[in-house]
Amino acid sequence: MLCLGIDPGTAVTGYGVVRCAAPGGGSLSLVECGVIRTRARDELPARLTEIFDGIRELIARLTPGMVAVEDVFYQKNVRTTLALGHARGVILLAAQQACVQIHEFAPADIKKAIVGTGSATKEQVQFMLTQLLRLKSAPEPSDAADGVAAAVTCLMRAHLHAPTLALPLRGTGQVVLRPT
Amino acid sequence: MLCLGIDPGTAVTGYGVVRCAAPGGGSLSLVECGVIRTRARDELPARLTEIFDGIRELIARLTPGMVAVEDVFYQKNVRTTLALGHARGVILLAAQQACVQIHEFAPADIKKAIVGTGSATKEQVQFMLTQLLRLKSAPEPSDAADGVAAAVTCLMRAHLHAPTLALPLRGTGQVVLRPT
Repeated sequence: MLCLGIDPGTAVTGYGVVRCAAPGGGSLSLVECGVIRTRARDELPARLTEIFDGIRELIARLTPGMVAVEDVFYQKNVRTTLALGHARGVILLAAQQACVQIHEFAPADIKKAIVGTGSATKEQVQFMLTQLLRLKSAPEPSDAADGVAAAVTCLMRAHLHAPTLALPLRGTGQVVLRPT
Repeated sequence: MLCLGIDPGTAVTGYGVVRCAAPGGGSLSLVECGVIRTRARDELPARLTEIFDGIRELIARLTPGMVAVEDVFYQKNVRTTLALGHARGVILLAAQQACVQIHEFAPADIKKAIVGTGSATKEQVQFMLTQLLRLKSAPEPSDAADGVAAAVTCLMRAHLHAPTLALPLRGTGQVVLRPT
């Protein structure tokens, strides 16, 4: 079972393809990751076409069973959110046209699934990705890593992979709540 | 010369097709208008596919030379803006794939082009549309009228039609600036 994870953006759309060895809980492995980069000098419709074609090509070549798309930070500024909406629109369309199952995850859900807390840092997510996928270093660039993280989250959530690792997180302090 | 004007929305996308009789300033006439309505119970990717297919069908059937897409009110709430971004994304993609010239207009620009002021009311825009296109009543529903307004704006701005009408606006007061 392959999952294509996508971190949408009009300038850079990151993606990662992760394989789950066996349905119901096999180990995870990274198949491919990268970015679809569009030129800033191009008009928006041309950039959207590049993103759409790129995602279609990935789906046709790798035939993932699922597509996981990262959702949006609503607190970002409205103009950025709108641009992101355009990119997400054509990505969802490409997946829908290919009849692939689509799952959407908020950034906090991805952090929670991978690190255990929705407030995890980018570095913590990347560290966990290298452990879960047995990589020598984190996937690069960071947009590609975000795509990989979405794919891993999707495979975990689909109960195809129950993580058995309980790795200590470096650099996280323990919060002690004291009654007032 | 035909122009397809579009008012994007994930629930209702309005459109209007307007003809300019002769390049360089012929009279304007309404060819067709309507809405692409999606079901609220459907998932977003399915709704985007319906909008995309609808716009593709319109372009293939009517072969407009230009597509005019209404831009977004940035002051709307972020969630609404994001949803609108998705719809705009697949609309721009459909037009780009069909190699049609794309023009984008802010709502205030459309009001200014049609009524003469960016703060015109919906009723004023509809009244002017009925005059410019010699209709018995305003195009309906209002989303379709917004699509028609975008198309008329585009044809006017493209200098294909220089409006010679100077119709009095009912219900607009005159603003007198007094030096202090």
